[in-house]
Amino acid sequence: MKINQFAYIPTDHQTILQELKDTRFLDEDNLHIQYPRQLLRDLLVRLYSMHANLSTRLEKISGLLATPTENANTYTNKPGSVDKSAFYNVGLQLLGFLNDLDFSVNDPLKAMKQIGLPIMDAPEQLNRDQVIDAWYRLLNTRNKYGQLLIDYLAGKGYYQQFLKNPTFKKPLFFNGKAQAVFDTSRLVRETVYVESSLDTDHDGRRDLLKANIIRPAETNAGFKAPVIFTADPYSEGMNVKWAEKYAHDNSRPLKHKQPNNLTYADVEFHYQKVDLPAPRTIKGKTNQAGETFTKLWSYSLNDYFLARGFAVVYSGGIGTRDSDGLRTTGTRAETLSATAIIEWLHGDRTAFTNRTDQIAIKAWWSSGSVGMTGRSYLGTLSTAAAFTGVDGLKTSIVEAGLSNYYDYYRENGLVVAPDGDDADALAEYTFSRQQSAADYAQIKDQWLAHLRQMKIDQDHDSGSFNSFWDARRTEKVNHTKADMLLVHGLNDWNVKTSQVWNSRNRLKTRPITQKLILHQGQHEYLNNFRSFDYTDIVNLWLTNKLFNINNQVNEHLADVIVQDNAQPETWTAYPDWGGSESESTIYPLNDLINLNENTIFPDQLPEDDYKVYSNDLKKWHHDLYSRDGSQMDSHCIRLLTKRLNEDLVIDGRPSISLRVATNQEFGMISVALVDYGKARRLTESPQTIDSMRILQGYHWRKDDLKEFLPQKTETDFKRITQAHMNMQNRNNSYKVDELNAMTFYRLDFPFQPTVWRLLKGHQLGIVIYASDMEYTVHGNQDVYYTVDLKKSHLNIPKLK
Amino acid sequence: MKINQFAYIPTDHQTILQELKDTRFLDEDNLHIQYPRQLLRDLLVRLYSMHANLSTRLEKISGLLATPTENANTYTNKPGSVDKSAFYNVGLQLLGFLNDLDFSVNDPLKAMKQIGLPIMDAPEQLNRDQVIDAWYRLLNTRNKYGQLLIDYLAGKGYYQQFLKNPTFKKPLFFNGKAQAVFDTSRLVRETVYVESSLDTDHDGRRDLLKANIIRPAETNAGFKAPVIFTADPYSEGMNVKWAEKYAHDNSRPLKHKQPNNLTYADVEFHYQKVDLPAPRTIKGKTNQAGETFTKLWSYSLNDYFLARGFAVVYSGGIGTRDSDGLRTTGTRAETLSATAIIEWLHGDRTAFTNRTDQIAIKAWWSSGSVGMTGRSYLGTLSTAAAFTGVDGLKTSIVEAGLSNYYDYYRENGLVVAPDGDDADALAEYTFSRQQSAADYAQIKDQWLAHLRQMKIDQDHDSGSFNSFWDARRTEKVNHTKADMLLVHGLNDWNVKTSQVWNSRNRLKTRPITQKLILHQGQHEYLNNFRSFDYTDIVNLWLTNKLFNINNQVNEHLADVIVQDNAQPETWTAYPDWGGSESESTIYPLNDLINLNENTIFPDQLPEDDYKVYSNDLKKWHHDLYSRDGSQMDSHCIRLLTKRLNEDLVIDGRPSISLRVATNQEFGMISVALVDYGKARRLTESPQTIDSMRILQGYHWRKDDLKEFLPQKTETDFKRITQAHMNMQNRNNSYKVDELNAMTFYRLDFPFQPTVWRLLKGHQLGIVIYASDMEYTVHGNQDVYYTVDLKKSHLNIPKLK
Repeated sequence: MKINQFAYIPTDHQTILQELKDTRFLDEDNLHIQYPRQLLRDLLVRLYSMHANLSTRLEKISGLLATPTENANTYTNKPGSVDKSAFYNVGLQLLGFLNDLDFSVNDPLKAMKQIGLPIMDAPEQLNRDQVIDAWYRLLNTRNKYGQLLIDYLAGKGYYQQFLKNPTFKKPLFFNGKAQAVFDTSRLVRETVYVESSLDTDHDGRRDLLKANIIRPAETNAGFKAPVIFTADPYSEGMNVKWAEKYAHDNSRPLKHKQPNNLTYADVEFHYQKVDLPAPRTIKGKTNQAGETFTKLWSYSLNDYFLARGFAVVYSGGIGTRDSDGLRTTGTRAETLSATAIIEWLHGDRTAFTNRTDQIAIKAWWSSGSVGMTGRSYLGTLSTAAAFTGVDGLKTSIVEAGLSNYYDYYRENGLVVAPDGDDADALAEYTFSRQQSAADYAQIKDQWLAHLRQMKIDQDHDSGSFNSFWDARRTEKVNHTKADMLLVHGLNDWNVKTSQVWNSRNRLKTRPITQKLILHQGQHEYLNNFRSFDYTDIVNLWLTNKLFNINNQVNEHLADVIVQDNAQPETWTAYPDWGGSESESTIYPLNDLINLNENTIFPDQLPEDDYKVYSNDLKKWHHDLYSRDGSQMDSHCIRLLTKRLNEDLVIDGRPSISLRVATNQEFGMISVALVDYGKARRLTESPQTIDSMRILQGYHWRKDDLKEFLPQKTETDFKRITQAHMNMQNRNNSYKVDELNAMTFYRLDFPFQPTVWRLLKGHQLGIVIYASDMEYTVHGNQDVYYTVDLKKSHLNIPKLK
Repeated sequence: MKINQFAYIPTDHQTILQELKDTRFLDEDNLHIQYPRQLLRDLLVRLYSMHANLSTRLEKISGLLATPTENANTYTNKPGSVDKSAFYNVGLQLLGFLNDLDFSVNDPLKAMKQIGLPIMDAPEQLNRDQVIDAWYRLLNTRNKYGQLLIDYLAGKGYYQQFLKNPTFKKPLFFNGKAQAVFDTSRLVRETVYVESSLDTDHDGRRDLLKANIIRPAETNAGFKAPVIFTADPYSEGMNVKWAEKYAHDNSRPLKHKQPNNLTYADVEFHYQKVDLPAPRTIKGKTNQAGETFTKLWSYSLNDYFLARGFAVVYSGGIGTRDSDGLRTTGTRAETLSATAIIEWLHGDRTAFTNRTDQIAIKAWWSSGSVGMTGRSYLGTLSTAAAFTGVDGLKTSIVEAGLSNYYDYYRENGLVVAPDGDDADALAEYTFSRQQSAADYAQIKDQWLAHLRQMKIDQDHDSGSFNSFWDARRTEKVNHTKADMLLVHGLNDWNVKTSQVWNSRNRLKTRPITQKLILHQGQHEYLNNFRSFDYTDIVNLWLTNKLFNINNQVNEHLADVIVQDNAQPETWTAYPDWGGSESESTIYPLNDLINLNENTIFPDQLPEDDYKVYSNDLKKWHHDLYSRDGSQMDSHCIRLLTKRLNEDLVIDGRPSISLRVATNQEFGMISVALVDYGKARRLTESPQTIDSMRILQGYHWRKDDLKEFLPQKTETDFKRITQAHMNMQNRNNSYKVDELNAMTFYRLDFPFQPTVWRLLKGHQLGIVIYASDMEYTVHGNQDVYYTVDLKKSHLNIPKLK
């Protein structure tokens, strides 16, 4: 077990004294205690003060061993200094670690070092001030259940007893993080309708956008809450079944495309100025909302902050149930339907209490400081909103967000969407107005026409870039003023890493602070892991950005944190990703071991194999990379380096340069980089290691504790990254070039960026193949490919 | 989609009027409305009255289609009768069903019939009284999300607005079920220590037992709450890692046992009268507890009742953290540590505020009526407590509970525990005192000695019944006064169906009401299924048993409800299980199709196969039953009936009578009944079909909606039931008989009871084999078995 902590801010003794007073661990009653042991006793009695009864508290203390032979009650019931080992024996038990399993009371420091828990730099005997400092650090140490001890205590009711005391600070900050001192049982839930500057359903009225607000009851007494806003197109319902019929069948042939001479200017999208209907007349004003709601899906990261004084706002945006408009999958209109909510939260836009009465209501309870959160489509909208530079948005926290829809659904002139997804299918999936039967009856014809047009414009058949896709490059506009925290999974093959790579590079041109976290998962949340203090990082971040607390997060938090793929529970700080700390290394392909001695390969599989693979993509992936012999052996080229003499860390965006010929007038090439070598690799989906263990507040939400655990058995290989190219788009994704049969062409294209450690003894592999059963069209066509390995090479950015 | 509803109580119009008044759907303001449409409008406005704003409510009504062309707002804004189809169009939408997906507004009744939703027996035009009756029935109809509409509305805040009105009833009952009108945000959580009449750790003081109480705040104002009590030995922590080293290795040889002449009198356990320490002196009294707690694991069935006026109490029992005593795995002492809590709740026993001060505290907030709930070990304790006839216990709801530990860990003289589990390992697993380091330090030596003695006494090596196991037959004592609701999975191979079969038969001798529910799952909860209204049944049951409301549950609820294995989402009422409605049918084994023509088979597998199967029990099970040819073909006898001409329903406990010889002086026989025939069978684990969809109260817990769905592909077979016997225990499980090599013996033994429908065209199969890789010891010994099929037969209880 390893615990990594990035969000602790080193704090001086004077500040510690003040913060311990603020949190009621110190006050006039115990500050005079001179004997370290008696002070520790008093601190322990306070730690258990959620129990009204003193005897109960002492019973709890009696249950802790201070030394192998003495419990903490008797140990602290005498004068003298505190043995460091006694302090940490007690500390480890408070953190939930078990004697004789996680540590031994005979040598607590040994286990702490192994786990990675902080130990005070002090002599073996702690004096009074050292006990205070060590106590502070202990409260700010993560426990066995993935929480800071202070957060765990808050969940157990520690702060509850002080909340009615008028001198108790609210909001309260401890080591730079907002504390769970708000009453989640009294949260106010209300709905408003923000009037946007859009009329996407062309009904002659500006689109009203429903916003669901959860705010602390304390706002009713004057507290102005900072706001976490999540633009969530899924929040009002998903048309799972209805969208199924919009799925595209990718088991179809690749076709020759008519060459063109398009330049970017030809495909650039230009916004047309449209006449907007006049705003609705404001017929009255109120501070009182008239609608409430119950949230079904719970975004646990947001819930955590509800106990800490933040308000949380959700909005589905245009085309979602109870809002106006149409879904468009990633256009500026969707972005503006997110920024409209922020403008209202910042005081710059009108909202109404309902869709009928035109009674305006202000976000009078909002501090005006907004941070966005969300994963996937939600993260995409956080990114897009930040790029606009909208006032009031202080930060976006983007988990697996897009910045470019072309790169989501296409790659170098090829369709690359799994499951036949495309922009039209996603539009239908999120158009939850359809679930409101009477509303849908009025808009049905327009909606179906809109979908038909999307289907044409997205040009699924060609896979080329066009102005439809240019309109869905949210990165195009970059007026970003918000600080950005980007989070992405290095094994995310839904939203791929080029999205965060591009976002990050675009943001580098802006005068903002950005941070990056890369983990070993697929398309996952990170806020319930034991080995990594993501929640605390976000708390530190939002406390700074939205509460304006100067907690030095910009300076103190590492710019890039990467989870190691080769060692479980290991997270490392880096100065950059694919920056000057890595150097380009060329691998001529002809110098590598050619596993099956192939240089020519047919794409076509025997019909039986094709069927088996179509129904079992896992088997196809396995056979494609496996070096143990499979039906794929003759359908790809597998190249391997020698065994590595030392660890090799790929850091950034590898690329490949190939000379390829085909026997047809169309063709595609796919390439995967593979880590070969026996290892127990990490699971890409989080595994629950303790259910309902994380207490997000006092009798508030609980969350499962998770981890990417090592798999139970060793595997011989793992794909690191991959890339695909339509040979007719060898120059770019919109210009279609001629392709003559039996003619060699040079293809230069990049992989999805990564950070990957290949261990000493492993081999780096390159697997070159054509159609991708999971990603691209795959018609099992009679096509041969020849690769001129002598004139081909791989380029790896290698960490120096 | 099918929805089965068992917990609706037919209600007359006068009672309907009163209950609709109680729930505020009717009052003086709308009872005078004569036009049916306008009354429906008023009811709809009230349904949405959680929204303060009238315009908002009308907007919601406008979102519903009443007819293909008119929304419910305009439809109800005129005089006249209500079209039945309009009523149910609106009704279906209120229930969450989607037009053009789940139903069509052109013919709502068609979908309702298919789904199984109740339609009022009324003409096409509903008059005023019919609208009222249909509205009442609609509120008591289950929605798409597995909830009654009234419960869904409560979750959305419908009742919330009335709670401060002193004329509003609390508790409130609707169609015989307690309503979610209690304020879960103010629940009181407190801990007491009940003094038991036990001293299982022999420290000269009676064992104190920690009890964690969650009670409605309304009890502080005089409300006396009925109590749901769950005795949960896992609640204070589980020693997962520590228990691992107590696992027994079952990959070991079966041994010859020394014959004996034991009678039951020789192995009967007799309780020794022990001198009990005097009770603690009561040094004071209080009504105020001094300790609080935070519950991690949430038992969603209990949580549901917290919103409905029930208190919920959890206690780990002897040997769990913060209690005294030792874990014993199923002895009377464990039962008494559960009944001690009931006695306190009923006013018959002392509890203290803490372990130190001897200040007594009564359960002053308790109505004295207690019902127990729980699954597995928890259900075992509910059963055991009921058998004692303890005062105050009005009912036990037993999900997959044991009544006999021998039948859990052994079968006919064989060990049958998967994963090498046994009584000692479970004792260690639940001995959570070990997690309190200082407490454990004092008791460690005694605990280890106790475990060593358990290991000797349980006699894992022989598998025979002895007085250790007789002491763990909780069914022995049967003074049951409580009404019983038993629930069990027909595919539960953890707690097997003989447990509920035996409990039920024992309970038949008592003057109580018992009901039984058998589902198609493994070891699962049922309270979050869409197709079955288990939660409502339990509500009806507990409202009757604990609130003493005369809701006719005894008379109205079917005695036995069984989920069909052959049709998804189908639950059927039966008068009994394996009673007079089924008749015994004999199948001579020699008349059956002998698939591999085996009558003799070796148990021993080639070493490679043995290894593969040891690591892949799923494959072993597949190969054992498969008729497609496998490595198991020569290691078993597979017998099949002809294809069935009509459905065959096995109802009760089949048995087999075999003549068997072996070439050794030891031997075991296993037999499985198998349903052969292609079908998409149900998953045995619940699948989530909609996450966090069930609202258990207003801003209270949510639960995932689940179902046993049909598997994605067809399978050729499924095991129905199985049985195992040590040939030396052919008379009973304690008397060991001689076994001579090459000599035929008659073995008569029963299968686990079941209810199973074999469809017409399927074949009933019998697979006879020896060692069971999953269940029994399996040493891969060189043993041959010969079965004299001419003198062997199967006995099936067949539903007439």
